[in-house]
Amino acid sequence: MLIDNIGTLVTNDPELGTIKDAALVFDDGLVAWAGPRAQAPEAAGTTRLDAEGRAVIPGFVDSHGHLVFAGDRAEEFAARMEGRPYTAGGIRTTVAATRAASDDQLGSNLDRLIHEALKSGTTTVETKSGYGLTVDDERRSLAVARPRTQETTFLGAHVVPPEHDADAYVDLVKGEMLDACAPHARWIDVFCEQGAFDGDQTRAILEAGIAKGLTPRVHANQLGHGPGVQLAVELGAASADHVTHVTDDDVDALASSDTVATLLPGAEFSTRARYPDARRLIDAGVTVALAADCNPGSSYTTNIPFCIAIAVREMGMTTDEAVWAATKGGALALRREDVGLLAPGARADAILLDAPSHIHLAYRPGVPLVTAVFRGGRRVA
Amino acid sequence: MLIDNIGTLVTNDPELGTIKDAALVFDDGLVAWAGPRAQAPEAAGTTRLDAEGRAVIPGFVDSHGHLVFAGDRAEEFAARMEGRPYTAGGIRTTVAATRAASDDQLGSNLDRLIHEALKSGTTTVETKSGYGLTVDDERRSLAVARPRTQETTFLGAHVVPPEHDADAYVDLVKGEMLDACAPHARWIDVFCEQGAFDGDQTRAILEAGIAKGLTPRVHANQLGHGPGVQLAVELGAASADHVTHVTDDDVDALASSDTVATLLPGAEFSTRARYPDARRLIDAGVTVALAADCNPGSSYTTNIPFCIAIAVREMGMTTDEAVWAATKGGALALRREDVGLLAPGARADAILLDAPSHIHLAYRPGVPLVTAVFRGGRRVA
Repeated sequence: MLIDNIGTLVTNDPELGTIKDAALVFDDGLVAWAGPRAQAPEAAGTTRLDAEGRAVIPGFVDSHGHLVFAGDRAEEFAARMEGRPYTAGGIRTTVAATRAASDDQLGSNLDRLIHEALKSGTTTVETKSGYGLTVDDERRSLAVARPRTQETTFLGAHVVPPEHDADAYVDLVKGEMLDACAPHARWIDVFCEQGAFDGDQTRAILEAGIAKGLTPRVHANQLGHGPGVQLAVELGAASADHVTHVTDDDVDALASSDTVATLLPGAEFSTRARYPDARRLIDAGVTVALAADCNPGSSYTTNIPFCIAIAVREMGMTTDEAVWAATKGGALALRREDVGLLAPGARADAILLDAPSHIHLAYRPGVPLVTAVFRGGRRVA
Repeated sequence: MLIDNIGTLVTNDPELGTIKDAALVFDDGLVAWAGPRAQAPEAAGTTRLDAEGRAVIPGFVDSHGHLVFAGDRAEEFAARMEGRPYTAGGIRTTVAATRAASDDQLGSNLDRLIHEALKSGTTTVETKSGYGLTVDDERRSLAVARPRTQETTFLGAHVVPPEHDADAYVDLVKGEMLDACAPHARWIDVFCEQGAFDGDQTRAILEAGIAKGLTPRVHANQLGHGPGVQLAVELGAASADHVTHVTDDDVDALASSDTVATLLPGAEFSTRARYPDARRLIDAGVTVALAADCNPGSSYTTNIPFCIAIAVREMGMTTDEAVWAATKGGALALRREDVGLLAPGARADAILLDAPSHIHLAYRPGVPLVTAVFRGGRRVA
């Protein structure tokens, strides 16, 4: 298949790799060729799509989601925005609903969110467990997710459930729960934060996961300063996620590591919290990814273009940087070389925008510009 | 037609008029009945749509747009967001492109934007002239718009074009240009702001328009404090638009008048400016509308759900207030009684959301939740 007459092609190869007046060839689910239109290879027998001067970019790689759950918390959101006290259970509400849901119900809610994300251009999606918080509910959360995405993350250490004390729960997570969950997961994650898990607990859980063959990622420094970022770097995590409250030492540690800083502006948007300073991170040499953090409590969005617009408005990113962070950045945060770029050999995951350039993703905020989505060379939305 | 099994119906009659487990009947393009499902009238022979527990709200009434133009200014936006100097012409770029465009080109760009707005739930749209700035280019801007919406606004006094001095241009606007434009317009508007038109000029132009049968609305107090709000109230304007930099006297004047304060958060979003304080206005008793201000320079969005989410995050509005402001508030800003509500006799303009309540418009930012749009009882998107 040949996509011809592309106004602006973003390849991410190298850097943003923007080509004006470009063409793109898919073959057998992979990118076969990308370059200036005038040099496009002969295309006998191929399907031709005329992009009519519009932009094509890589599919979004959303490296941070909490998509396995039941129920919603709209009333809690409305109360928070109004400054009203809200005495219902927060995350416990979602845990109770998730435990009560059947596997089929969890699967169909997950399908709904993956499809919603796909329609807005997300062709690779990560999801965590973390609303089960029992051995069986964490295991089945991951077992439901695994057939739907290879990027599954065991997050038994999301919060300590009310029926446990913290130490006993940490023992459960790194023992029986990990044993049950590891076969269904690629990653292990801990919410390292005051009120969730401290540095020692985080280290113990991540090391247990590593010993089981999982690769770490860490919820780090979201609500206040803590040891999460340093632990992520020390343990070779693929990503430290949130990274809002950081010292210069934290920034330096990230900059001299392979650990990506994954920024999640949807969470700050929906909790009216301070945004992370992407400019400071990028200027220091940190690799930054943008992800949606879709979850029913603090960021109930799957929409990466929205996150790009917010990152440009609020976090000091250029549109180029934000688009790169939501594609190649996400791929690096998932240690994936096959997605997040449009170069020969990459998976043919691409978005056709109803706009002449990727800048319009921030310039036209809220407007659904994603007009066609290809995944593995097949048009899926 | 009966829309049955509505989870949450927002009627705006009176106030937000929310009804749970509701039904809605359209007949001959108008709302025939709205109320609790159990009391719905017999529906022999009518089409029945099962809302499956989802929410239905009135169509959005977008009372402020600059939709007649050509070209875009994506590079200027990118430069502004990066803090780079940008020496191209700003609004003059759009004026030059608009003057160079044919009526057909202006009409098809306008159709594109109206359709884009419609798909996101906007069933009533206002548009201004203001990128022609010659007698003929202003006239044809309005003549192109008039068959597409009855809410057309003569904004010859957008900026002083470079070929005129200010006084001569004001004379032209309130003389020959007004004569040519008045037959195609319902409203007259002036950009009353330092660098555009001062209080005396604004008054002279609005009074000339009133004498020609147009009703005033005013771009007021956007970039700094000025006389715009007070003039709007004094001259009986339907709306003062932007209303960011206001004194207590301005707020009191609005509160004791029929002039609506139309807030346009897309402009502050895309120029990284301070948001207007909706909370202060509402608490003082001012009627507030929300609109998109779609234009290629400072707010290139048609998306009202995006504006609602920003208003809740940044402007102190509750979701209920923001949804009301984008529907009934917009209708009041256009002095329309037939739109912005779902009560018997109103035009059957309604949106079916892919969500159980209107709260999700802010709770799920960026997610395109508008799943069906009805205008005059007909499904149009």
